[in-house]
Amino acid sequence: MGLDIRERGLKKPVAVAEYLFRRLHEIGIRSVHGLPGDFNLVALDYIPKAGLRWVGSVNELNAAYAADGYARIKGISALVTTFGVGELSAINGVAGAFSEHVPVVHIVGCPSTISQRNGMLLHHTLGNGDFNVFANMGSQIACDTARLNKPAEIADQIDHALRECWIRSRPVYIMLPTDMVEKKIEGARLDTPIDLTEPENEAEREDYVVDVVLKYLHAAKCPIILVDACAVRHRVLKEVHDLVEKTQLPVFVTPMGKGAINESHPSYGGVYAGTGSHPDVAERVESADLVLSIGALKSDFNTTGFSYRTSQLNTIDFHSTYCQVRYSEYPGVAMRGVLRKVVERVDLSKLSQPSSPQVVNKVAENWDDSETITQAFFWPRIGEYLKENDIVVTETGTANFGIWETKFPPGVTGVTQILWGSIGWSVGAAQGAALAARDMGVDRRTILFVGDGSFQLTAQEVSTMIRHNLKVTIFLIYNEGFTIERFIHGMEAEYNNIARWQYTEVPAVFGASDKQCRKFVVKTKDQLEKLLTDKEFNEARGLQFVELWLPKEDAPRALRITTEVAARTNARVE
Amino acid sequence: MGLDIRERGLKKPVAVAEYLFRRLHEIGIRSVHGLPGDFNLVALDYIPKAGLRWVGSVNELNAAYAADGYARIKGISALVTTFGVGELSAINGVAGAFSEHVPVVHIVGCPSTISQRNGMLLHHTLGNGDFNVFANMGSQIACDTARLNKPAEIADQIDHALRECWIRSRPVYIMLPTDMVEKKIEGARLDTPIDLTEPENEAEREDYVVDVVLKYLHAAKCPIILVDACAVRHRVLKEVHDLVEKTQLPVFVTPMGKGAINESHPSYGGVYAGTGSHPDVAERVESADLVLSIGALKSDFNTTGFSYRTSQLNTIDFHSTYCQVRYSEYPGVAMRGVLRKVVERVDLSKLSQPSSPQVVNKVAENWDDSETITQAFFWPRIGEYLKENDIVVTETGTANFGIWETKFPPGVTGVTQILWGSIGWSVGAAQGAALAARDMGVDRRTILFVGDGSFQLTAQEVSTMIRHNLKVTIFLIYNEGFTIERFIHGMEAEYNNIARWQYTEVPAVFGASDKQCRKFVVKTKDQLEKLLTDKEFNEARGLQFVELWLPKEDAPRALRITTEVAARTNARVE
Repeated sequence: MGLDIRERGLKKPVAVAEYLFRRLHEIGIRSVHGLPGDFNLVALDYIPKAGLRWVGSVNELNAAYAADGYARIKGISALVTTFGVGELSAINGVAGAFSEHVPVVHIVGCPSTISQRNGMLLHHTLGNGDFNVFANMGSQIACDTARLNKPAEIADQIDHALRECWIRSRPVYIMLPTDMVEKKIEGARLDTPIDLTEPENEAEREDYVVDVVLKYLHAAKCPIILVDACAVRHRVLKEVHDLVEKTQLPVFVTPMGKGAINESHPSYGGVYAGTGSHPDVAERVESADLVLSIGALKSDFNTTGFSYRTSQLNTIDFHSTYCQVRYSEYPGVAMRGVLRKVVERVDLSKLSQPSSPQVVNKVAENWDDSETITQAFFWPRIGEYLKENDIVVTETGTANFGIWETKFPPGVTGVTQILWGSIGWSVGAAQGAALAARDMGVDRRTILFVGDGSFQLTAQEVSTMIRHNLKVTIFLIYNEGFTIERFIHGMEAEYNNIARWQYTEVPAVFGASDKQCRKFVVKTKDQLEKLLTDKEFNEARGLQFVELWLPKEDAPRALRITTEVAARTNARVE
Repeated sequence: MGLDIRERGLKKPVAVAEYLFRRLHEIGIRSVHGLPGDFNLVALDYIPKAGLRWVGSVNELNAAYAADGYARIKGISALVTTFGVGELSAINGVAGAFSEHVPVVHIVGCPSTISQRNGMLLHHTLGNGDFNVFANMGSQIACDTARLNKPAEIADQIDHALRECWIRSRPVYIMLPTDMVEKKIEGARLDTPIDLTEPENEAEREDYVVDVVLKYLHAAKCPIILVDACAVRHRVLKEVHDLVEKTQLPVFVTPMGKGAINESHPSYGGVYAGTGSHPDVAERVESADLVLSIGALKSDFNTTGFSYRTSQLNTIDFHSTYCQVRYSEYPGVAMRGVLRKVVERVDLSKLSQPSSPQVVNKVAENWDDSETITQAFFWPRIGEYLKENDIVVTETGTANFGIWETKFPPGVTGVTQILWGSIGWSVGAAQGAALAARDMGVDRRTILFVGDGSFQLTAQEVSTMIRHNLKVTIFLIYNEGFTIERFIHGMEAEYNNIARWQYTEVPAVFGASDKQCRKFVVKTKDQLEKLLTDKEFNEARGLQFVELWLPKEDAPRALRITTEVAARTNARVE
């Protein structure tokens, strides 16, 4: 293909697809999730050329879930689907990333601009000549939408989309028509990296907020820090850790913030979620006269049904786009700069030093004579099995609530989807997380806790784990159905039952040799003990699949409380 | 729950959910696909009470595909999902039903109107208080959207939505908030069935069109009939069959119309799809001086890349909302009434009687010495295995094109998704189709042809087949990847490869006993011959799973031609 008139004068002409994928590499992506489709095939040829790996997912929803998991570990991720059928299959996964502030670059290969302009009756369309309907849907769950229709604008569009994705920590939607894939654009731009630095706060305004924060902080008798989801997603953990180190204030996490704080740190006090918290944690947080709330995301399941008993009069909120001190709002003042200055300027001599909280795994008190593994027993026990830097993925349902009871060793990353709560997500997310860790060249175990009901939705993602030899340890909680739904409504209802699968045979069916995958069935505490202390199991050199029997009508404490509230909210009528 | 003021005066108060599900039963639905979620649980309690079966699908996309398949056999179907996560997982399947004119009632259990009004930060939301974003997406692929927020309006909304769904043969979206589920509405309305009759054409206008049609028909020297998708979907096959019987005109089908005409009828001439047709078929259709085109849907894959060589000057188009004679359009004149009158009024003495076309399965000429089963050999051979009233489901990819070469026995229903073309669809569709046949109390075999690449996307739908003891015979075309994509671009590309599964073990993993499922591996013509003539296999008393080996770089003739065109269209630049 010769250069056309618009391509003359380019210093280093590169194809649009090359530009895009080289940019993805530059911002840290190494593996690209997705499926081939005829509207993206030629673009896919450029993936290996840019030093990227094509994952070859089993379906688009799983691919989106995996991209979500990848981004939570690697910082950002990419997903390639095809027009209509592919992108819509992925849309729930991308919506989850939007909801939970996860930066995923969604690239959709679509019909050529010529076909679009002519309104051709192509496959993968609604048959009505509307080529924008899916992009319009996608734009509802993206913080930027780039339709790459004009070569002269494409480089700007791509750079802008990737910057927005990173800065705002949410998905972007990029529509790539087949006739644009190999158009030449200015490659010289690639010599200058995309600017991913966040805009600084206006200094005077920021100083003002810092002064206000310090005034209240210095005056407080028993201040605490509460770390939530957006502290993780908007990457201020360095600032938070510095704040904790410097002030030694008691620090708590929300369920969505779990893993943000070293739980062996003497200042760490546990998981706060209103009435779902342990009584001593609730007591400490709710008796504080100042809560430094960092990156709060107060959804129902993150707060045990909006059950905080803290007062806004005692709260300072730090967010990615604003801060709020009691009822005074400071729009446009992002938390990072404020937190940095608070760390620098806090006067330790003026700071109260409340006593350190104490957190212990509570396994001992649950050790009864029964051989049955209960949820109450299991989750604290897992805290002793985990080791430093593990990646722990928990599924919506019992696992998401049970994990509150698990004490994480230092460096453990918790991966949950508590706000969006799409069942089946964790299987894809675990694949993506494990791949991200490997792409980072670090040796971290990825451990997945997923219920049998949820597992069935996305089971074939195990095939992708096998294809890429990922070292994931899967605890499949075998308790015969949708436990979280049972506790909300229909404990015995047919609709909360699922088919009985031969779960431990799943990896073999998806192509794993006995060498690639070890499998276990664990029905008793003894068997669990033996497994969790087994050296080879702990080394996790390959895929490991544990079918873990828990009682059907058992649930973690926090789940019971949360689902009661959910049922009441659903039932409320006027 | 007592009656509130708005419920007083109701003659027969019934809960909204009861009303809705009784209406579904009334219009012919017997099984409801979907998954439980906390926003739909209470509603699900009403499903068995209305005499409906809850399918208990494995995931929402599969459920949507299955609902699509169910509707293609039973006439209409229903799908229940939960807000956000559930409905978005299903959206690609529902979009397919919209694209392909399939009536699916999509009911979404959503948060209470109180929670919505208060903008609560609930799970399954984007966290931005917007409770309409998903319904707005859903409304893009629905012919009616009903938000059931006010009890006084709900019965009307439901009746209107169900009527629209049926009449327009497309999905409708019904948003059911938790606090509306048990509100009481007027049950006395249920004594009067919903009016599902189509509006009649205005008589004078219809007569005018009939006269014009007859004028051209009587004048034509070699007229033919061409039957396409919308003749099936908009239920005018009775009229079409009467037309064929009365006129004895040669009749052809498009790929999307395959199965609409008894292929043993002396007037039947084969599959016409432009350059993808057999030469003798193309010759007959393209030399006609009048094409009565019924329910045309001229998409790329239905026309071998828009390759018809027929002239609009020789064409009369019959559609569900208009007719067109040459270039004269008659908006608002629906085909049914026109076809009925054409049948009544055609003057056989004035009608040319072209000779009957001849169609044969072409298996003999493909019988070479090789033991390899080629696509060219396989599809005609299957025509001899099929028997009357079989339901034949073919996946996007080689199966969809291969089946052009298969002669159907009388009464066979072909189920394809040629326009939307979402890979994996057929596995769900086959489940739904088989269930529909059973719900109708008829003993029809359901036979699925699906490629290995496509099967991986939705494999767990086999679990639902097992759960309901459905008699599906699955031919898994084992040819190592996405063949249709290979032929478009990337014959050897990594991205068109898939993981090797132990396919024949899939049913056992999903819970099938040896008694429930028979499995076969077929690598040679001899093995195929033995299987296809085996008495027990032909009786198909349970689930049957055949891993069928076909060469990796082999494809049906029509697929080769179509993909060449698709690749050219994608590559075309300005």
